[in-house]
Formats: sequence, C-alpha cells, structure tokens
Amino acid sequence: MAKQDRAIRTRRAILTAAAQVFDEHGYEAAKLSDVLERAQVSKGALYFHFENKEDLALAVLEAQVSHQAPAVSGTSKLQEAVDVGLAFAHRLSYDPLVRGSVRLTLDDTTTRLNRSGPYQEWIELNAAILRAAKEQGELLPHAVPEETAMVLVGAYAGINMMARSMNDQASLGVRAAALYRHVLPSIAVPGVLMTLDLSPTRGARVVAEAEEANRGEDE
Amino acid sequence: MAKQDRAIRTRRAILTAAAQVFDEHGYEAAKLSDVLERAQVSKGALYFHFENKEDLALAVLEAQVSHQAPAVSGTSKLQEAVDVGLAFAHRLSYDPLVRGSVRLTLDDTTTRLNRSGPYQEWIELNAAILRAAKEQGELLPHAVPEETAMVLVGAYAGINMMARSMNDQASLGVRAAALYRHVLPSIAVPGVLMTLDLSPTRGARVVAEAEEANRGEDE
Repeated sequence: MAKQDRAIRTRRAILTAAAQVFDEHGYEAAKLSDVLERAQVSKGALYFHFENKEDLALAVLEAQVSHQAPAVSGTSKLQEAVDVGLAFAHRLSYDPLVRGSVRLTLDDTTTRLNRSGPYQEWIELNAAILRAAKEQGELLPHAVPEETAMVLVGAYAGINMMARSMNDQASLGVRAAALYRHVLPSIAVPGVLMTLDLSPTRGARVVAEAEEANRGEDE
Repeated sequence: MAKQDRAIRTRRAILTAAAQVFDEHGYEAAKLSDVLERAQVSKGALYFHFENKEDLALAVLEAQVSHQAPAVSGTSKLQEAVDVGLAFAHRLSYDPLVRGSVRLTLDDTTTRLNRSGPYQEWIELNAAILRAAKEQGELLPHAVPEETAMVLVGAYAGINMMARSMNDQASLGVRAAALYRHVLPSIAVPGVLMTLDLSPTRGARVVAEAEEANRGEDE
C-alpha cells in the first residue's frame, strides 16, 4: 500500500473512532485516550492528523455533509433534494460517522464548539439543488430556494431530534417523508410533485445505487 | 394574602428561579443552592413544593405547554394553531419559564431526564386543534391531523434549535412563520389559507390580548 493510501486510511479510522466516542459520550465527556484505543493508533498518528479534540470534532461535523451520495441519474432536482434527506436517514441507521456528527450537532450543551457549520452547509446544499430545480421549471413562481432550504434543514433536524427524545430514531425515514409530503406541495409544480418517490425504502436504494457506482469507479 | 395564595406565589417563584438556572447552566450543572438564592426562599420551602432537581425540571418542562394563551376569539382553528406557535416564539424572547424549559427540552446530553413529555403534549395540543379544524371543514380531505401535528412540532423544535445554534434566536417568529407558510398549503382549504395572519407582530398581539383578557377576569 502506498504511503499516502495508508495515511488516508489511518485518518479515516481515527475519524470513525472519534465519531463513535462522541456518539456514546457527547463532546464534553469524550476522551482522546478512548479514541486512540478504539482506532488502534498511536498518539503520534492522531496528532499528525488532528490538533486536538475540537479539531477532531469539527472534522466529524464536516463529514456529515461532505459525504454525499451522488444523485441518482434521471431524476428531477426535487427528487434529488428528497433523496439527500432520505439517504441521510438511512445512513444514520448504520454509519458511525453520521451518528457521531448528529450527536455533536444536536448537543445543546456543547456551547464551546461551533456547531453552526453543518446547518449552514445543509442549507447551502439544499438551496443549490432548489435553485437548479427552479431554473428547470420544477418550482412554483413564488418559491424562494434559500427560504425553503432554511425551513427544510431546520425542520429535518427537529424531526430527527424529536425521534431521538422519543427513543424512536428508526422512524426517521418515515417522519422525513411526512415532512417532504407536507412542504413540497407549497413549492413544486404538480407535474413534478406526482413523480416524487417518498417511499420508506427509497433511502436505502439511493445509498445502494451510490455504492454500486463507486465500486464501478474503483475497478 | 391568604395562605394558599402565598403558597402558589412561592411555588411560582421557585419554578421561575429554577427555569433561569436551567437556562444558564443546563440540567446537569444546575445547583439547587442557586435556585434557593435566586428565589429567596428557604430549603424547607423548596422541598415542600418539589422533591428534588428532577422533580423541579419536570415541572419546568410541564409549564412549557400548560401555560397557553387562550385563543383569540373569532379566528379559524388553523389561525389558532398558528397563534400557538407565534405566541410561543414571542414568549421565548422574555419569559424565563419558557426559556428554561426549552433548554431542558433541547439539551441532548440530559439523557437521565425524560424529555419526551413536551413533544407528546405539543403534538396532542396541535392534533386537537387540527381535528377541530378538520371537523369544521378547514382542512383538505386527505389531511391527517395527527401526522401534521407530528410534522409541525418536530419542525418547530428544529427551527428553534437551528436558530439557537446560529445565535439567532430572535428570528424564531420569522422562521416559524416561514414554516407555516410552507406546510399549511398542503393541508388547508384555500378559503381559510388566504385569511391566515402570519405577520411578524402577530405573536406579540396574541399574547397581549390574552393578558388583557386575564386582567379582565381578575377584577
């Protein structure tokens, strides 16, 4: 394995271990020694990649938005916006990076950490897709992509948090689909609205298709 | 002052002081000694009304939903649902009880405290208003009051949390109005939709009218 490949794998292992520790203990109580033990790396390796706990936490937060599955080909832009949300709900059920970064984002006592990053990035991602949707005529004339993006991102985070508080996080996909069903009729033209797939299995299919495409590229 | 009146005022003073302490320090770090000092009451008085810190926190959480302004007379049921949300956004700007209970609800690290209560109660309150709206023909035939209530409550909590994380809680009223503008067209009949008042000053007016009505009753 090339030196650079090894460094990328080590960094990824540290990040995943850190996400697990943050998910279990929260930011304040998380210990770097637990991260070292779980990732099976030396202190030197960790400090080669990350300055301190805050730096690690910010990298975990950053991964929440940057690891996006590519859009399924042949769909409308609005379906792409929906797919981002449904794929995220699916990944939350198994991906430690997503789980850890969600806990960091929702952790209201972590006031020392700047947690506004993921919100800003999710809003920008959604606004960009919605602007493209508007350009190709999928949105009603009065729709303002930036405002809808703000509503969708805030609402999605709240539905996730409510599911956590009610110990029912497995239902996030179903709840997110209900959110889209309530919001999209106010901004989408009917012709696009009726083509949208909001079924509970959509998230898993989007993720699987993205992994399939990735494997194809690696070969 | 009658003995009972004094007890009610003391309980209220303790509750408000506790809400302020929870708002500033979060549940885990909050100390009963700070509550005593702020409320200017004895330990005996506190323990007469509340068993322990958890009991106090649950009472603060409970006050979040129970202190509802009565509906403004002559409005549609959908306007009543909107008014509940806009009045809450307004009260959050000055009422320590609301602020403290919101911090307790959103505090993701307070896993030892059952925080699902307010969510359940907000869902029930919204579902009851929406069922009444449906009965008097304000909703489209496919609308399911319980599902819309779940979406609205989760989404509202998230928009509140996002505003907190972005240090922009003053904008909650504007953001909540945007949420209602995005959700209500999918469930309301057009004739009711066009009568809804979602202006930024609506929340303050609803609260003022309720206080006016209260003063009238006290005389």
